Amino acid sequence: MKLPVFEDIIDAHKLIKEFIHRTPILTSSAINRIIGSEIFFKCENLQKTGAFKFRGACNAVFSLTNEQASRGVGTHSSGNHAAALALAARIRGIQAHIVMPSNSPEIKKKAVAGYGGIITYCEPTLQSRETTLREIAEKTGIEIVHPYNNCKVIAGQGTAAKELLEEIPILDLILCPVGGGGLLSGTALSVKAISPLSRVIAAEPSGADDAYRSFKAGYIIPSVKPKTIADGLLTSLGEINFAVISQKVDDILTVSEESIIEAMRLVWERMKLVIEPSSAVPLAALLEKKEAFRNLRIGIILSGGNIDLGNLPF
Amino acid sequence: MKLPVFEDIIDAHKLIKEFIHRTPILTSSAINRIIGSEIFFKCENLQKTGAFKFRGACNAVFSLTNEQASRGVGTHSSGNHAAALALAARIRGIQAHIVMPSNSPEIKKKAVAGYGGIITYCEPTLQSRETTLREIAEKTGIEIVHPYNNCKVIAGQGTAAKELLEEIPILDLILCPVGGGGLLSGTALSVKAISPLSRVIAAEPSGADDAYRSFKAGYIIPSVKPKTIADGLLTSLGEINFAVISQKVDDILTVSEESIIEAMRLVWERMKLVIEPSSAVPLAALLEKKEAFRNLRIGIILSGGNIDLGNLPF
Repeated sequence: MKLPVFEDIIDAHKLIKEFIHRTPILTSSAINRIIGSEIFFKCENLQKTGAFKFRGACNAVFSLTNEQASRGVGTHSSGNHAAALALAARIRGIQAHIVMPSNSPEIKKKAVAGYGGIITYCEPTLQSRETTLREIAEKTGIEIVHPYNNCKVIAGQGTAAKELLEEIPILDLILCPVGGGGLLSGTALSVKAISPLSRVIAAEPSGADDAYRSFKAGYIIPSVKPKTIADGLLTSLGEINFAVISQKVDDILTVSEESIIEAMRLVWERMKLVIEPSSAVPLAALLEKKEAFRNLRIGIILSGGNIDLGNLPF
Repeated sequence: MKLPVFEDIIDAHKLIKEFIHRTPILTSSAINRIIGSEIFFKCENLQKTGAFKFRGACNAVFSLTNEQASRGVGTHSSGNHAAALALAARIRGIQAHIVMPSNSPEIKKKAVAGYGGIITYCEPTLQSRETTLREIAEKTGIEIVHPYNNCKVIAGQGTAAKELLEEIPILDLILCPVGGGGLLSGTALSVKAISPLSRVIAAEPSGADDAYRSFKAGYIIPSVKPKTIADGLLTSLGEINFAVISQKVDDILTVSEESIIEAMRLVWERMKLVIEPSSAVPLAALLEKKEAFRNLRIGIILSGGNIDLGNLPF
């Protein structure tokens, strides 16, 4: 299995720079006081399509040869990767086929359609999603872009931490959430190359703790019936992601649903940022273990801000 | 009556630079597409205390001599100015006396107290607020800092538009909300000095349209029973503010409550920014008059983000 390296992230950054937002890094004295540390938030909720996923999708789409690109790209997803791939494809001027379960929320269907994605609905099972996508791929020859278990995607996601460290070079610790592991593996590659002494710690909801258990066991233990408000973190670790994470990540912490909601509310109220629950998971870990993180310089990647305003947990 | 000039804004900027956030300027392709223009949002909702008011309060507090400062500052306010003055005073290490109506929302009382303000409660009438503040001033010798009818405050507020034009030098139009006129008069002074050909247009809720009516009439017509969701814009124009606005502002537009809520939702959903209703008023004006603003480069000052998350209009 070929693993991505930091040079892939450098290349990705050059390739996607003109298409992505260089997102701001914001701080909050109020939150610093609560945690007792200095925290730098890399605001990927302000990224195009509202999530870091656009970086990876962009790198995957723009890495294709013209010949490959001409046949289009595709994925099965009901989340942020679908919107990100649709927009990246639109910018390159090619087609994106998105397979979505028929029961996906209206708001997600609208987002993908709004970015010009061609939606094919399927049954709400993983098997139906995969079969439907494979059928489209056989007919059209599209390049399938996996949401996280893909070297180009990982390299793209790693550009967020690269930007963070370019602006804030001295950090004791970088935290990000972990679901499939795309953001975490990319982040770890960047951090350990640019600032080898900085720790990389992932945070995960205890209701979806497959990454935590896999990390401790040393082999992938897939999620069984995960349940958390952090809907972006329900997926199981990918193989490439796990291989990188095993080598480069220092620790994975799990957090309660209450802490996630508390952290989310803090960011909304004190930082005036709309973040989705998955984004709040790293700050939730700090809230739960304040003593362990006192007097540090900490980077947090706020992963995304796509949430239904009609259905808030507060 | 002495009016502030652009040089006061330059001085203010030098004085407060180290205490304020240089807030980011963000864009949204989705909102650009909806309006048919290129819009640059100056994010004062990300300013300290969650509103542009911190700029003016900081300038007022740090312009005092040591002798004046030693006696403290004060104001009557239940809104963003109170929190801003409290924090500015805390940074300078002096006392801030804040007179608040006893029926102020808990969240506002907590914010002022959290920034170290000394709260005195009064009856919820303007007369009681003024009398209570005057009594404190007579006893303590504090410097009263009016929320908008004050040259130092106006000069501080003008630094937001100055920063906007320093980063985005070519703008056809700058829009901001108008309540008491502190932000608008400061903005107009900056814009007409830095970029004289750019238009300055204010937006106001039609349910609180005293600035619109005063601007058209040529003299101040105070608000009578204003009613709008944009609670930051209920106040009547100040005299200094009106004098500057009459000279420097190109137009004032009024907008409906529905447009304010629509604009606010757009910014939350598409830009992932928590803004209060007052901040949404300029974008509401663009939504209502798209044809008039097509194909322009437009700056909008997002004035603040202080809102009770338990009481949203959507």
